Amino acid sequence: MAKDMTLLWGPGSPPCWRIMVALEEKGLQGYNSKMLSFEKGEHKSAEVMKVNPRGQLPSFTVGGTPLNESIGACFYLEDVYKSQGNKLIPDCPKEKAVMYQRIFEAMPLMDKMAIVVYYDYKVPEGERHDSAVKRNKETLTAELKLWEEYLQKTPGGFLAGKTFTLADVVLFPVIAYLFRMGLCEKRYPKLAAYHSALKDRPSIKTTWPPTWKENPQTQDTLKEIVSTESSGECGFSRNRHYIAVFP
Amino acid sequence: MAKDMTLLWGPGSPPCWRIMVALEEKGLQGYNSKMLSFEKGEHKSAEVMKVNPRGQLPSFTVGGTPLNESIGACFYLEDVYKSQGNKLIPDCPKEKAVMYQRIFEAMPLMDKMAIVVYYDYKVPEGERHDSAVKRNKETLTAELKLWEEYLQKTPGGFLAGKTFTLADVVLFPVIAYLFRMGLCEKRYPKLAAYHSALKDRPSIKTTWPPTWKENPQTQDTLKEIVSTESSGECGFSRNRHYIAVFP
Repeated sequence: MAKDMTLLWGPGSPPCWRIMVALEEKGLQGYNSKMLSFEKGEHKSAEVMKVNPRGQLPSFTVGGTPLNESIGACFYLEDVYKSQGNKLIPDCPKEKAVMYQRIFEAMPLMDKMAIVVYYDYKVPEGERHDSAVKRNKETLTAELKLWEEYLQKTPGGFLAGKTFTLADVVLFPVIAYLFRMGLCEKRYPKLAAYHSALKDRPSIKTTWPPTWKENPQTQDTLKEIVSTESSGECGFSRNRHYIAVFP
Repeated sequence: MAKDMTLLWGPGSPPCWRIMVALEEKGLQGYNSKMLSFEKGEHKSAEVMKVNPRGQLPSFTVGGTPLNESIGACFYLEDVYKSQGNKLIPDCPKEKAVMYQRIFEAMPLMDKMAIVVYYDYKVPEGERHDSAVKRNKETLTAELKLWEEYLQKTPGGFLAGKTFTLADVVLFPVIAYLFRMGLCEKRYPKLAAYHSALKDRPSIKTTWPPTWKENPQTQDTLKEIVSTESSGECGFSRNRHYIAVFP
């Protein structure tokens, strides 16, 4: 049944990765899969633009219908294949509420991360300001502090509580990306423990970005993102903004 | 059962409005409701910050659990009150796919609208650039063209097809807001027809922003957003950026 699904994806992209995790969790192996290169600009190729006119990866179709929005795709897979594979929406109304809240908080987290990591890529040279760079970093730091607190306040090891849910499918790739970009484990111990506990889950391990397997070295882009209340010991990196796209 | 829900909201805010529409559709009247003022900065009040540390409206709780993310709240209400009121997720897998795709495309649409409408509010004075303003408008124009095409290609009168779904709950307030901000009906005839057809639906009419009822006059902020293929006749406004928050 996964044969009518086609995923065009780029390695290391959290939105691409989360669809792959959802497909694994629902036992939907055997879909058509093609890895494209952001570096080569393949996300702007005709093949992608036909399905995804915004020129982004993932480009995902089910039975020919575009379902490129990655969180929407995860919801769809859980909805249509409810009784197959792992159940990703909990029964408990309170856990449900926390799950839906966290899933949609992925957007502010990703937006605040992206404007720090991709500042030079997103903002043309003549429009860049040190004041904006400083503010963006402070905004990301405040956002990360919220997530560190969420994990502290929600016992159970997963984002919505005691079970692995769509919130983990959606957020794990973002959290893994933060650490790939150099987020300091000592400064964000709850996020680091969450990352460490989930990274060997079969759906995640199987879909781990191939470029990260080839080169396990983390970047230093987010080394300087400091938790204000932390006394961690990670070193500061030079004040440089990494321009690569999902390296 | 709606008595354990509390909604703090601001008039005219699409995220606030969509929760109100979802509550009506699910027959969940009788929730605790309090209108706050963006102009008075009440979205940064202690009452809001306690529930929503990002200092935003809506602030929504169910049984004391924060569920501020408005689209997440709509999903939650449909999930927990599945058999009550109107069914908001279609059975047909193809309609489901279109619905999930459109719901999450609300984010790029809202982001691209917000950076045009709130440019002066979001960007400090020393960091503003005419080149960015121009680019933001072009980006919004391209985005709106997509939505005009979606309505053209999807027959049935609703965003996902023949039935009113969560996609309409999520998107109608955004589309209404675009027209409130002066989007030209002649240039976006499909969006205008959609807006016109749905505005008298009971869930929407009942929750229509009270400030819009008091003052039905549209703004001219988006008058200059032109569909490239259009020959509409709306007049251009002066090149000014409206700084009000959800007026």
